[in-house]
Amino acid sequence: MAEFRPGSADQDELRQDLLSHGILVASGVAGLYGHSATFDDIVTALDRMVTAAAAGDRPERFRFPPLLPRAYLERNNYLESFPHLAGTVFSFDGGNDEASEQAARATRGEDWSEFQRITDLVLTPAACYPAYPAMGARGPLPEGGVTLDLGAAWVFRHEPAGDPARMQSFHQREVVRLGAPDEVCAWRDTWRDRAAALLGSLGLNPKVDVATDPFFGRGARMLAASQRQQQLKFEILVEITDPEPTAVASFNYHQEHFAHTYGITTFDGATAHTACLGFGLERITIALLRTHGFDPTAWPAPVREVLWP
Amino acid sequence: MAEFRPGSADQDELRQDLLSHGILVASGVAGLYGHSATFDDIVTALDRMVTAAAAGDRPERFRFPPLLPRAYLERNNYLESFPHLAGTVFSFDGGNDEASEQAARATRGEDWSEFQRITDLVLTPAACYPAYPAMGARGPLPEGGVTLDLGAAWVFRHEPAGDPARMQSFHQREVVRLGAPDEVCAWRDTWRDRAAALLGSLGLNPKVDVATDPFFGRGARMLAASQRQQQLKFEILVEITDPEPTAVASFNYHQEHFAHTYGITTFDGATAHTACLGFGLERITIALLRTHGFDPTAWPAPVREVLWP
Repeated sequence: MAEFRPGSADQDELRQDLLSHGILVASGVAGLYGHSATFDDIVTALDRMVTAAAAGDRPERFRFPPLLPRAYLERNNYLESFPHLAGTVFSFDGGNDEASEQAARATRGEDWSEFQRITDLVLTPAACYPAYPAMGARGPLPEGGVTLDLGAAWVFRHEPAGDPARMQSFHQREVVRLGAPDEVCAWRDTWRDRAAALLGSLGLNPKVDVATDPFFGRGARMLAASQRQQQLKFEILVEITDPEPTAVASFNYHQEHFAHTYGITTFDGATAHTACLGFGLERITIALLRTHGFDPTAWPAPVREVLWP
Repeated sequence: MAEFRPGSADQDELRQDLLSHGILVASGVAGLYGHSATFDDIVTALDRMVTAAAAGDRPERFRFPPLLPRAYLERNNYLESFPHLAGTVFSFDGGNDEASEQAARATRGEDWSEFQRITDLVLTPAACYPAYPAMGARGPLPEGGVTLDLGAAWVFRHEPAGDPARMQSFHQREVVRLGAPDEVCAWRDTWRDRAAALLGSLGLNPKVDVATDPFFGRGARMLAASQRQQQLKFEILVEITDPEPTAVASFNYHQEHFAHTYGITTFDGATAHTACLGFGLERITIALLRTHGFDPTAWPAPVREVLWP
């Protein structure tokens, strides 16, 4: 089971400040918070900002729920690479007697998990996952490929932590590109620069860097080295708390991975390539609150102008 | 395990129509759909409409994630009343060998659930559940109580069905009132009428009725009879498909239930009463699409004026 990752002194202090000011609402579980109106207003403004920045790509919009068919994770290698982060939905399987026993144990604080069976659903770990099978089912992409705007989607990572910027349930604001390799790479590079400029316009100090995913287990080092060498993942990092910067956006080039898995082809029948970008809306919100203070009405005018034009 | 509930012929036809027009996106799991831009635009407009209708109550806004601490369900009797609808989050518990075996089994389509352990999280079954412990933790309510606007929250009900209006993962648009009994009852009655008027202004034909929750097992009939006799739950129903109308909004008076569980008191120290209302945004969206057609630009002008003023 994922162990609690304690926060640094700076992270603990920021979390306490956000809670004591009522900006986040504690739930009793590490990394699970309610959002106040102040917090939600910033999340919503960031969502709108990305929507506007993506409009020039003429994306097709979709919105997906926070759950995914279990079969998707089973097909796309997530369980090989990130078993520790996945969340699986279980549900009650039994009759009257089992229901009574389950409820009685729950009331007594005892283990009632034996009455639960795995369902065909898991929690969505990345906002773009439902988009690939949907696009594969449609037939070949049009010439020039397509861009998808997936809005602000709730995703789950099972990593309870003291750092308020490391939530278990949070919004990924994702845009996805599907097409020929050169189209997809050019789009990814354009957005990397565009995103850095957007975050800079918010008074943050963004740094772009090659990055790797948090692979699990024995193969982790090799997978990360290969990913880094091919520059498949970039992140934008900003200073939120000591001791190190926090990734607030990422840009991932999947090559043929998802297209091969779900049968996505270009207009001329070749296997498509895909890339996605995701902004971590809660992380950017926390970065803004830390940088500019807890009262957004007192933020610098140029920052307010970007968020609330 | 919850059995698939087949749709009526009319429901199956509507589901097929929504999918073939690309308004909903199939996932392969019953009751789990992606939303097209057309669908999402209506959901978003309904959300805004409720926000505007609630503004006169001067609510405090919160937004909660689609997950809830497991301890909440264990304390608030949900597992006694609705064990069949609950979703529990499980996660991987093991090392390298277990991870390899889990992934291998998943690839072969075999059962890998033995490597999963219950976490301290469940799926949120009702949008208002996280609000009560948050309010209890704050201390006594102000004089006159408070109203909370919880926005459009994703909730989960484990009831796979053919009826497209019965989704497993959907948006509840909730508003909550906490205060003295007379304040709470008056608010609930006002909103019941206000909501019926709103739905009527959308060209639907709403009917208000006393209702009961889908209690599980042996005690179900008695619990439902008691709930009905005390008129604790009202629903607004509209005709979507044969053979019967569909509930698209509900109004629930909890009396002292949540306040007692989470220690919510009025300004003068009495146990508070609570009530909530929830609009089923996807159900209303489907009702509108069925009633006015699949092209919202061609909907009657008065309906468009309400949704896109």
